[in-house]
Amino acid sequence: MTQAVIAIHGGAGTITRAAMDANREREYIAALEHVLLAGQRVLAEGGSALDAVTEAVRLLEDCPLFNAGKGAVLTHAGTYELDAAVMDGATLNAGAVACVKRLRNPVLAARAVLERSEHVLFAAEGAEAFAEAQGLELVTPDYYFTQARQEQWERARASAGMALLDHDAAALAAMAKKEEPIDPDRKFGTVGAVACDANGNLAAATSTGGVTNKQVGRVGDTPVVGAGCYADDVAAVSATGTGEMFIRTVAAHDVAAQIRYAGLSLEESARRVVMEKLPAIGGRGGLIAVDRDGNVTLPFNTEGMYRGVARVGEPVSVLIYG
Amino acid sequence: MTQAVIAIHGGAGTITRAAMDANREREYIAALEHVLLAGQRVLAEGGSALDAVTEAVRLLEDCPLFNAGKGAVLTHAGTYELDAAVMDGATLNAGAVACVKRLRNPVLAARAVLERSEHVLFAAEGAEAFAEAQGLELVTPDYYFTQARQEQWERARASAGMALLDHDAAALAAMAKKEEPIDPDRKFGTVGAVACDANGNLAAATSTGGVTNKQVGRVGDTPVVGAGCYADDVAAVSATGTGEMFIRTVAAHDVAAQIRYAGLSLEESARRVVMEKLPAIGGRGGLIAVDRDGNVTLPFNTEGMYRGVARVGEPVSVLIYG
Repeated sequence: MTQAVIAIHGGAGTITRAAMDANREREYIAALEHVLLAGQRVLAEGGSALDAVTEAVRLLEDCPLFNAGKGAVLTHAGTYELDAAVMDGATLNAGAVACVKRLRNPVLAARAVLERSEHVLFAAEGAEAFAEAQGLELVTPDYYFTQARQEQWERARASAGMALLDHDAAALAAMAKKEEPIDPDRKFGTVGAVACDANGNLAAATSTGGVTNKQVGRVGDTPVVGAGCYADDVAAVSATGTGEMFIRTVAAHDVAAQIRYAGLSLEESARRVVMEKLPAIGGRGGLIAVDRDGNVTLPFNTEGMYRGVARVGEPVSVLIYG
Repeated sequence: MTQAVIAIHGGAGTITRAAMDANREREYIAALEHVLLAGQRVLAEGGSALDAVTEAVRLLEDCPLFNAGKGAVLTHAGTYELDAAVMDGATLNAGAVACVKRLRNPVLAARAVLERSEHVLFAAEGAEAFAEAQGLELVTPDYYFTQARQEQWERARASAGMALLDHDAAALAAMAKKEEPIDPDRKFGTVGAVACDANGNLAAATSTGGVTNKQVGRVGDTPVVGAGCYADDVAAVSATGTGEMFIRTVAAHDVAAQIRYAGLSLEESARRVVMEKLPAIGGRGGLIAVDRDGNVTLPFNTEGMYRGVARVGEPVSVLIYG
């Protein structure tokens, strides 16, 4: 029997002590602890890694502090488009939804795809139709609304919005000169969980509202199996950051591949992806990963990442800064 | 200078000499040769691998014999939903579109995403809006129509359609007992190209109409970087087959990862993915791959795969059967 463990993240970015007030910090810590305790409980009761990560991400989606489900960021058009994925390392079964606008819990739709569809990935209205047929809860866009995300969006539009709208070459060139057209703090949010259960089975789940002011239809790494979410019998990985670079490096699968083929440890494999491969193409963010021995690593190349670990039978651990 | 080479595929499945009449066979061979000659010309004139694979897949999309662009299969709803991706191994730049319904050439939209967007993947209407803003050609659904695909769809609906519509547990259980609810011949179509140019740079492109009678919104491996399309500086890969299994095994990236980390040859790496890893989870199909030395491999675990190779300065080679 392995000592079961769950790790979670709530996004990475320029999260610094200086920019965080004490009340806000307490809110985040309490929210992360609440989610970890729930995931830990699933594992303690003999639940599977797959059940633990699904439950943790469902709770993170329901928490307005994080950019997934309630509290999701807005697209350039002022709409919400959510992505989620879940993968079971024991079977390589996976489910994902992209660009959904009416689902309360995209991760539950991803789980339903995993369990009850011959397909793995559904996009847009087709994903919603599938979820609705499965009896999952639909919401109207006001469900996702939070004042904080609305204000972020308005600031993002004011600073870079029109340039992003037109994708014109001059504007993109102008943006390229600045490292970050939008405050990175507003850009990186995504939630995720990885777990190893008592049987040594692994699972990962990831969910996001994407990046503030993103183009309508943009899909990041979250629902892309192998990029923002991946689990097999050597590692389970959930990522957060500049999704495009995680797609291009197939980041989550690369963590597992380096362990399987190059014999790296979980920690060293994840470090190379986050500290070397992603920065080489301008990728910022982090990931959480667990292996079948219950080792956990949570590297990030940003100032901070909301994160935590809970081993069954031990106190939970929550961290924010680097 | 490397001897530049391009390889293409037009889908894999139960393609047997017995089921193929002589005229049909000649049509396929002529079409594949035409595409290979065009790709070879791009490379011979000093064009990049990226340009060669884009042009080859554009031509395959325009050819009604193959399941991409004109000649795409129909969804359960009788609509067309196309996916495409392209990746430049030299830079890890990638572009992809999923679930598009109005683009004549999805691969050109993917290429535009690669070149002119900060994003990598666009889905549905957002992808079409992006492509339209880039001046790409829009079509109405009748453009994609071919009598052959319409008839396939009608047969598929008659044999399994209602079951797939409802995704109800009983119907899925009944289907699970049969290995193939729909004739596999009708299920596997996708086109793709991989190339190594004179500078040793690699690229891959893949495009598809998906699987006949698929659920609306289903996205297969084609636009998923790492699954149906991938290129880096060790290998470029384009896949075709039961897309869900290619997503779950992150098949295209796994070919490159085994070369990079385990030191396998291109041929052996691709063989393990197609002949061992995919069959282990019920995956059927094949892939084409090229490495930076210009080695090419085209393995498949089905009866046949439309495929061909063209090295600059040599006659083109086209094959259909196993």
